[in-house]
Amino acid sequence: MKIPKPLKDLIESFERLPGIGPKTAQRLSYYLLHVPQTQLDDFADSLSNLKKNTVLCSVCKNVSETDPCVICLDINRDKSKILVVEQPLDVLALERTNKYKGVYHVLHGSISPLDNIGPDEIFIEDLVGRINMDVIEVIIATNPTMEGDATAMYIAKKLKVINEKLKVSRLGMGIPTGADLEYADETTLTQALEGRREI
Amino acid sequence: MKIPKPLKDLIESFERLPGIGPKTAQRLSYYLLHVPQTQLDDFADSLSNLKKNTVLCSVCKNVSETDPCVICLDINRDKSKILVVEQPLDVLALERTNKYKGVYHVLHGSISPLDNIGPDEIFIEDLVGRINMDVIEVIIATNPTMEGDATAMYIAKKLKVINEKLKVSRLGMGIPTGADLEYADETTLTQALEGRREI
Repeated sequence: MKIPKPLKDLIESFERLPGIGPKTAQRLSYYLLHVPQTQLDDFADSLSNLKKNTVLCSVCKNVSETDPCVICLDINRDKSKILVVEQPLDVLALERTNKYKGVYHVLHGSISPLDNIGPDEIFIEDLVGRINMDVIEVIIATNPTMEGDATAMYIAKKLKVINEKLKVSRLGMGIPTGADLEYADETTLTQALEGRREI
Repeated sequence: MKIPKPLKDLIESFERLPGIGPKTAQRLSYYLLHVPQTQLDDFADSLSNLKKNTVLCSVCKNVSETDPCVICLDINRDKSKILVVEQPLDVLALERTNKYKGVYHVLHGSISPLDNIGPDEIFIEDLVGRINMDVIEVIIATNPTMEGDATAMYIAKKLKVINEKLKVSRLGMGIPTGADLEYADETTLTQALEGRREI
């Protein structure tokens, strides 16, 4: 049977999203048939307005409604510390800890030669441009993956050239809270041993 | 941190979908930030046009672009058999078998007193209205759940009152292809035993 075109269009739109397969796309689309038109219109509006009503903060490159963003504008934020992350969602995760009071820099990716993403494709130069006498520490919080590690190394080297005294750190690595030591992999355990702290 | 409103709106829209939790909604919304505006607009259009450009077929109540739908209009379809399903997606699943050449009737739900859905809330009366001298068999293919079974019983009783000679059947029940007998539950095995066939 031919699926009606309006449904097919929607199914295809859903399928383009990461982690949504053909079955889920079908299920979601047919579900939306039972939803009031106003809810559909709201959904549609929020989609088309997503990029129109947001900008990248010209300072930290985070997604924001205003430029500069609320964090960069906040006078209570310690501008001497810059925490570097790969994605805007990482900022959200760190903000939830309520422990970090410095500012951020969002790279929007990591160096990944396999995907044709070099240092110029992500906002590394913009980070370099932010380093001045006021900045004391740069905390690199890229993901603990091959790409994230390579990006961290690249940035660290680059920053040391500009200012030798600049403190460049990487997020502590080790076993996460609630994890089972028995199931931790060797790399994680090695990192945990190396990063051990006196109590 | 406050999430920018355009993003928050989209996250909330995604969260309203079944099976999409807050984390997935966030991930999908942030993903869409990296997508071209045209793709966002296409997605938005297919959402707002979903219900505008589709109708329920006045005969079988399936979702369709035309009224009557392509299946009801098809002269090669055997109009003496009506297969009753709960949802439009069920029609799709049955059409994929390429074995059924009759027509359908979509109830858009099942009788479920706990959810305040009685026989009048789904298209049962419309099914009753379709029964005439040409209809020989009604195959009830509601889901093998409490609600589906109750709906099947209700429809069967109702149809027998109108035409005693009408053949009313229910989909065969038993173990599905590829399943492991060891893990089949008692009800399924009982059904499989009762529905055994000579080979």
